[in-house]
Amino acid sequence: MTLTHFDEAGRAQMVDVSAKAATTRIAVAEGCVVMAPETLALVTAGTAQKGDVMGVARLAGIMGAKRTADLIPLCHPLALSKVALDLTPDPALPGLRITATVATTGPTGVEMEALTAVSLAALTVYDMLKAAEKSMRIEGIRLLRKEGGKSGTYEAAP
Amino acid sequence: MTLTHFDEAGRAQMVDVSAKAATTRIAVAEGCVVMAPETLALVTAGTAQKGDVMGVARLAGIMGAKRTADLIPLCHPLALSKVALDLTPDPALPGLRITATVATTGPTGVEMEALTAVSLAALTVYDMLKAAEKSMRIEGIRLLRKEGGKSGTYEAAP
Amino acid sequence: MTLTHFDEAGRAQMVDVSAKAATTRIAVAEGCVVMAPETLALVTAGTAQKGDVMGVARLAGIMGAKRTADLIPLCHPLALSKVALDLTPDPALPGLRITATVATTGPTGVEMEALTAVSLAALTVYDMLKAAEKSMRIEGIRLLRKEGGKSGTYEAAP
Amino acid sequence: MTLTHFDEAGRAQMVDVSAKAATTRIAVAEGCVVMAPETLALVTAGTAQKGDVMGVARLAGIMGAKRTADLIPLCHPLALSKVALDLTPDPALPGLRITATVATTGPTGVEMEALTAVSLAALTVYDMLKAAEKSMRIEGIRLLRKEGGKSGTYEAAP
Amino acid sequence: MTLTHFDEAGRAQMVDVSAKAATTRIAVAEGCVVMAPETLALVTAGTAQKGDVMGVARLAGIMGAKRTADLIPLCHPLALSKVALDLTPDPALPGLRITATVATTGPTGVEMEALTAVSLAALTVYDMLKAAEKSMRIEGIRLLRKEGGKSGTYEAAP
Amino acid sequence: MTLTHFDEAGRAQMVDVSAKAATTRIAVAEGCVVMAPETLALVTAGTAQKGDVMGVARLAGIMGAKRTADLIPLCHPLALSKVALDLTPDPALPGLRITATVATTGPTGVEMEALTAVSLAALTVYDMLKAAEKSMRIEGIRLLRKEGGKSGTYEAAP
Repeated sequence: MTLTHFDEAGRAQMVDVSAKAATTRIAVAEGCVVMAPETLALVTAGTAQKGDVMGVARLAGIMGAKRTADLIPLCHPLALSKVALDLTPDPALPGLRITATVATTGPTGVEMEALTAVSLAALTVYDMLKAAEKSMRIEGIRLLRKEGGKSGTYEAAP
Repeated sequence: MTLTHFDEAGRAQMVDVSAKAATTRIAVAEGCVVMAPETLALVTAGTAQKGDVMGVARLAGIMGAKRTADLIPLCHPLALSKVALDLTPDPALPGLRITATVATTGPTGVEMEALTAVSLAALTVYDMLKAAEKSMRIEGIRLLRKEGGKSGTYEAAP
Repeated sequence: MTLTHFDEAGRAQMVDVSAKAATTRIAVAEGCVVMAPETLALVTAGTAQKGDVMGVARLAGIMGAKRTADLIPLCHPLALSKVALDLTPDPALPGLRITATVATTGPTGVEMEALTAVSLAALTVYDMLKAAEKSMRIEGIRLLRKEGGKSGTYEAAP
Repeated sequence: MTLTHFDEAGRAQMVDVSAKAATTRIAVAEGCVVMAPETLALVTAGTAQKGDVMGVARLAGIMGAKRTADLIPLCHPLALSKVALDLTPDPALPGLRITATVATTGPTGVEMEALTAVSLAALTVYDMLKAAEKSMRIEGIRLLRKEGGKSGTYEAAP
Repeated sequence: MTLTHFDEAGRAQMVDVSAKAATTRIAVAEGCVVMAPETLALVTAGTAQKGDVMGVARLAGIMGAKRTADLIPLCHPLALSKVALDLTPDPALPGLRITATVATTGPTGVEMEALTAVSLAALTVYDMLKAAEKSMRIEGIRLLRKEGGKSGTYEAAP
Repeated sequence: MTLTHFDEAGRAQMVDVSAKAATTRIAVAEGCVVMAPETLALVTAGTAQKGDVMGVARLAGIMGAKRTADLIPLCHPLALSKVALDLTPDPALPGLRITATVATTGPTGVEMEALTAVSLAALTVYDMLKAAEKSMRIEGIRLLRKEGGKSGTYEAAP
């Protein structure tokens, strides 16, 4: 097994994708922010009146997806054709579940864009709630599904 | 409990810190990337010959810390005085443990900068190893410790 | 009258503010987006159920204020201590009125940051509503008030 | 009428343009900076000897057009194929008239890029002249014309 | 001879490339950082144990190539398909030789991206070694080769 | 001799400057773009009528200085208080000589900002003239002088 981000001498590189076809590619990633029930109550109350934590985090995720190639050193710049985020309160965590879906028509996949969107939405949730609770944790960020490209469809184990 | 990132009408804002003193502030955050033992072996082998995964991720974390206010919508821009990251292979995970330490002399804390540094280093690890394993997970991103500011020292439970 | 952004030979420069004291500075700017009454109705309805146009524009303005020195070539970078935006539907326009308040403790004023915040919030309003109406206009962007610095307080004529 | 930037539940999203054809698209926007005659005289004199206000603003507009997707939260990133700005002194305003023309070959239009170019050029004019006059106003930013895409040609009323 | 970055009236513009075909384009640039033999010894020793100057500079060059259109005012944004840098110690300089190879499939060439990658890698070398020697010089940055596009292949004189 | 950008284990870091006093710091850097006499003639003619190559490059240098900490991985962000560039045609090269002067009040020096300003101005000159001559070279980028900070004044050998 070799890592494609390094050449034969171990030097980091942005690998050549010139020969890869520009096809439709989709990636879905998820993650969550685990918090105390009282903190979660601030979020769910906030949506109605006190301030829209999930709305701000959703935008941070969308904007973050567009900055992925700026942030991940060896990531190819891609013209994203779709970014959508879903944040859902889950009392069983307790906390917020975050899912991001990203699509492009391009030569490489958008896994990193979807994972970056989830990460930045989660960090933004933390930022807006940290005055209430510093012990929140960001957990379970992973790729759920990808479609398109030579390696085909990937589906995470449940 | 009110959330300071929103005003009394629930509108998001970058809160006024004009009146806060510029003091030394430090934050330490941690997180990890969980992977298969074979994937971890690629990293530890790579440090020697095949490509320095941890070195690239460390830089991504440092550069990401400097971009925090660009990425987190309501975060104040701060002139960081220190950013250091530590990545350690842990066969017990198995995976990589990441710790980031950030310092500033300013009116607000650097918790978000430390958490952003860990997140971007973890995403970069994922990017470099995803050809080997797509099922890696980013776990346990949290604040370990903060010092300075009116709210004083915070230390995470072990 | 000479323009301080140019030297004696007419060359653009970022003028030297080393000798200026770091004091508290505040600027307030305003502007509006003029639209058809039916378009405005989409916004006011949207706040409740269909999508929060004003919330998205507010964030774009806050984030834009932080990017001012990146966008305006001769503008000094400043660590902003406060950014707040207010968007208000005004049936008399008809349209949305936007006000931005920015503060810093620094050697130069934050007029450009407040004007940039208003402009980017207005552009974002246009972006979200352009499917409904392409003939919207951004009007009346101006400085309402500034405080602090050697030139003291400025108050716009009503 | 629904706003495409929000999904059926009112959540902001970057809408899916995967299915849209990449065609040539052009947009022209305009706006102006209204100022006192004495301020305008500084600009027109400056072009010759004292500093090129219009040249600096033109560049800020061109560079700003390239940053549009970074600044407008739900805007798709596009590889622009042309950006040109025209700044003309108009003693009748009195002030500067600004026109921006942007082109791309892509799945979405470039209205926002043209409007952003005009806005950033106008803000830069304000920045360079604010030492002379703080009461300048940015007025009349609007889309003049767009071509290409499913919705076809739009021409503003005169 | 006219300069295409200016229109007939001498106004800077990002020239229209709508009509140019998107073809594969490659550019190779080089440059070097000249330093004292003792400084070079720190680099070559560092690769093994004391810190990887060349690894950090390589990443800065790769990331810089992706930022080219943000940095060079009239440069078209391009989705790069490959960026690779090679840094080699040369005791004969004494110093480091840097080569960058960039590829895209697009309507314009990637000369500026290759030259920007070399420049930023060289600046990063300077930054990391300046505590040891302030008199280092960056020399001989030039285009070695370009392929693709209407003007065909260019090969620098040896 | 150790390199401060690496810790004792050779890991890259943004070194801690918390304990360093914020004092006035100035740096001056220079460099040049060497070209054919005919190419230089286009520049000098251009200033008058055909397009202001030096004006565009000057702005690129100023804006680049403000982006230094974004571009150089281990560079501290600093609020620059002055950036000025001087471009002078020199028929003896033949080519353009570029000098940048940067100042700040901060805990670290601005050598990298001055060198980055020169580099980006030089790259912009190349970009605007490359249609006329691809064999231009960027030469002799170096620090001329620095003042302030614990290490005091540095003056380059002539």
